Amino acid sequence: MTTETLTKSDAITESLRAAVDRNFDDQVAFLQRMVQFRSLRGEEAPQQAWLAQQFAARGYKVDTFSLADVDIASHPKAAPMDTIDPAGSMQVVATAESDGKGRSLILQGHIDVVPEGPVDLWSDPPFEATVRDGWMIGRGAQDMKGGVSAMIFALDAIRAAGYAPDARVHVQTVTEEESTGNGALSTLMRGYRADACLIPEPTGHTLTRAQVGAIWFRLRVRGTPVHVAYSETGTSAILSAMHLVRAFEDYTKTLNAAAVRDPWFGQIKNPIKFNVGIIKGGDWASSTAAWCEVDCRLGLLTGDTPEEAMRGIEKCLADAQAADAFLSENPAELIWSGFKADPAVCEPGGVAESVLASAHKTAFNAPLDARLSTAVNDTRYYSVDYGIPALCYGPYGQGPHAFDERIDLESLRKTTLSIALFVAEWCGLRKL
Amino acid sequence: MTTETLTKSDAITESLRAAVDRNFDDQVAFLQRMVQFRSLRGEEAPQQAWLAQQFAARGYKVDTFSLADVDIASHPKAAPMDTIDPAGSMQVVATAESDGKGRSLILQGHIDVVPEGPVDLWSDPPFEATVRDGWMIGRGAQDMKGGVSAMIFALDAIRAAGYAPDARVHVQTVTEEESTGNGALSTLMRGYRADACLIPEPTGHTLTRAQVGAIWFRLRVRGTPVHVAYSETGTSAILSAMHLVRAFEDYTKTLNAAAVRDPWFGQIKNPIKFNVGIIKGGDWASSTAAWCEVDCRLGLLTGDTPEEAMRGIEKCLADAQAADAFLSENPAELIWSGFKADPAVCEPGGVAESVLASAHKTAFNAPLDARLSTAVNDTRYYSVDYGIPALCYGPYGQGPHAFDERIDLESLRKTTLSIALFVAEWCGLRKL
Repeated sequence: MTTETLTKSDAITESLRAAVDRNFDDQVAFLQRMVQFRSLRGEEAPQQAWLAQQFAARGYKVDTFSLADVDIASHPKAAPMDTIDPAGSMQVVATAESDGKGRSLILQGHIDVVPEGPVDLWSDPPFEATVRDGWMIGRGAQDMKGGVSAMIFALDAIRAAGYAPDARVHVQTVTEEESTGNGALSTLMRGYRADACLIPEPTGHTLTRAQVGAIWFRLRVRGTPVHVAYSETGTSAILSAMHLVRAFEDYTKTLNAAAVRDPWFGQIKNPIKFNVGIIKGGDWASSTAAWCEVDCRLGLLTGDTPEEAMRGIEKCLADAQAADAFLSENPAELIWSGFKADPAVCEPGGVAESVLASAHKTAFNAPLDARLSTAVNDTRYYSVDYGIPALCYGPYGQGPHAFDERIDLESLRKTTLSIALFVAEWCGLRKL
Repeated sequence: MTTETLTKSDAITESLRAAVDRNFDDQVAFLQRMVQFRSLRGEEAPQQAWLAQQFAARGYKVDTFSLADVDIASHPKAAPMDTIDPAGSMQVVATAESDGKGRSLILQGHIDVVPEGPVDLWSDPPFEATVRDGWMIGRGAQDMKGGVSAMIFALDAIRAAGYAPDARVHVQTVTEEESTGNGALSTLMRGYRADACLIPEPTGHTLTRAQVGAIWFRLRVRGTPVHVAYSETGTSAILSAMHLVRAFEDYTKTLNAAAVRDPWFGQIKNPIKFNVGIIKGGDWASSTAAWCEVDCRLGLLTGDTPEEAMRGIEKCLADAQAADAFLSENPAELIWSGFKADPAVCEPGGVAESVLASAHKTAFNAPLDARLSTAVNDTRYYSVDYGIPALCYGPYGQGPHAFDERIDLESLRKTTLSIALFVAEWCGLRKL
C-alpha cells in the first residue's frame, strides 16, 4: 500500500475538493441537526448520543464515557464543576485505526453551547438552524458546531475520494469547553494521544497564535435585611456587590496597564477582560437585600499562572472589603466556580503549523494569518500540559455568545477542504 | 339593655384586663399557629381559610372573597399585581353584628409576610414561631400577625368578660399589604364601612401620625451580549442596570434635600428611601449580560401624589439614559410593579384618636406618643380615599423584613388590652 502526500498530487487535492462539494448539502443538514440540539451545559448527552451513532455508522470505533468515568476531579488541572454532575457530562471519541506510518492526529470540537438569552431578541429562533443568504443562524452554529461538522466531513471527503488517513485519527466531541475545559482534559486522562491536535474553533480561518487564560469566580455577598423604612440601619447585599464589581473593574484597568509589557498581547488594547456575567440578589422590592451572588470571569496573560491570577483576585477582593465598613466585618464568600485556565502560546515554526499553512493556502489561495485570542480554547491542555502540538483553526462566523450567532457556509466549505488537505498531508493517505 | 362606656367603670377595665391575661396563653398559641403558616405573597390562602374557621367558631358572620370577586383592577387606586393572580388572593371579613347605638369599627390586619431570606442567617427557623425570653421569633410575628392576634383576642376578652360591642364590628384579615395594598382596598370595594378603623401594625404602641407613600417599579434593562473576548463591542445589561441604580441614588439625595420643607417629615433625616430590592441578570459568566431586571421602591412625602412621583421616576430614568450611549438608543423598559401608594396623615384632634389615647393610658400608664413612618400601611385607603378615621397602632417588636423578626409578648398583652379598652369605649359595650 502506498502513502502519497497531498503536496505531491494536485489530483488528490481536486478529488478532495470535489468530495467536500459533493457532500456539502449533507454537511449543512448534519450541522442543522446539530444546532437543533439545545446542548446547554448539563444537557449535552442527547447530542453526544446522536454523534456516537453518526460515528458508528461511519465505521469508527466509538468510545463514550463520562467525566466521572475518568475521575476528573483527581487531575490537578481539572476545574471545579459548579452544580454540574460529572457523571452526566458525556464525551465521545471516535477512532479510525490505522497501521500506517503517518503522523497520528486528534481532531476535537466542543458541542456545549452557552445559553441563548431572551429568545425575543433573536431575529430567528436560536435552535431552528435557519439557513439564509449563505449563513446558518443559531446558537452554536458558529461556536463551534460548524467546526465540528468540518472535521467530520473532512474525513468523510477523504473516504469519498477513495482514501483513508495513513495514521490513527481520533475524532473527539467534548463538553465543558465554555465553563471548565474538563471535557477536553478527560480525553487525555482517558489515554488518547496523537502527534498533533487540531481544534476547529471559529477563528475565521486564522491560526490562534496565543490565547489568554481565564478564571471564573462567584462572589456570595451577604447583607443585613431590614424594612426599607429603616434602610439606613441595614446593608444591601446588592449595593455591596456593586461596590465589589467596581473594585474588580478598577483592578482590571491596573492589570491592563501592566499588560503592555506582555510579549504577545502588549499591542492589544485591554486584553484582560473582566466580566460580571450573572447577578442574582434579594427577595423583595421593599427590603434591603440579604444576599447577592455575582458570577465573574477574569482573564490572565501568557507568563501568568491561574494560581497567581487567583491570588490577585483574592487580594483585590480583600482590599475592596477592607475599605467597606460592613464587608470588612462580613466578607463575601469567594467560590472558584469554573475555569482555572492556563494561557497558551502556539509557538511559531512547528511542523504541524507549516502543514496547516500549506493546506490553508491551497484551500483559500491566501497565506495563513495568525491571531491573538482574548478567550480560551481547549488547545491549552494539549500544548501546555501534554506537550502535543495543538492548532486552533476553523471557519468564519459572527456573534459567539450573542444573538443571531451565525456561520458563513462558504467559509465552512473551504475550511472543511482545508482540514481535509491538512489531514491528508499530516497523516498521509492510503488508497482504499 | 344599657350601654356603658369604659371610662365610667374601673370594673370593666379590670374585667377586660383579667380576661386578656386569662386568654393570653391561648393567644400565644394562636399567634404561633399563625406564624407557622408561610403566608408569602400568593401563598396566603391556607392561612385565610384557617382564620375563617377561627372566626366562624367565634360565631362571627364570615365573608371570604378574592380580589377577583371585587374586580380589583377596576378601582382607580388599585395597584398593579405583578405575577399574582387576583383570584387566588383571599380576603376574610368577620362581622359581629349589633343593633346597638355605638360607633361601628373596622379592625384590620394583614397576614401576608415578606420572604424570609437565607434561612441559615436566622438564629431560629423563621416559621417555627419559637418563644424565648419573652419574645416570639419568626417571619410575620411582628409584621403583623402579632397585631392580628391582638385585635382578635381584644374582642375575645370583651366577650369573656361578659360583654359585646354595642355596634357593628368588622374583623378583617387581608393580603397584599406588603406589595400593593389591594387587599385592604378590596374590603372597601366589597362594601365594608365603619365610623373608624384601627390597624394594629407593630408601631411600638405609638400612633402613626403621618406615613410616606411608596412606588414600586421594575427596570428591564437590555444589553448586547457578546463573547467576553470581545466585551468592548457589547454592552452589559448588568453594568447598565448599575448605572441606573446610581442615578436613582442621586435622585433620592435630591428629593431628600427638598424634603426638609415637608410639614411632617422635614425634621427626619432622609425620609425618602430608595431601595433596589431584587436584581437578576445574565446567563453566563463569560458572556456580557443580555438582560438585567431590578425591582425598586421609592418613597414620596405628604403633599405629593403617586402620579407625580411616577413622573419623577420617569424623568430620572430618561435623564440617566440620555447620558448613556447605549441606553439612549435602547431604553430600559419601566414597569409599575406594585405600590402606587398615597402618603397619608392622621390629622391630630380626631375623636377616635382621643379614645385610643385614653385606652392606651389605661393599659400602659403612659401617654400615647405619635410617630412618623417612612413606610406605608393600609390606613391610607380609609383616611385618604374613603374619609374614615383610621388609626395605626399596635404592639412592639423588632426586625420587620429582617432576620430574627420578633414580637415582645408583654407588649402584645398590653396592646391587646389597650385595643379591648378602645373597642369598649368607641363602640360602647352591652352585657351579654
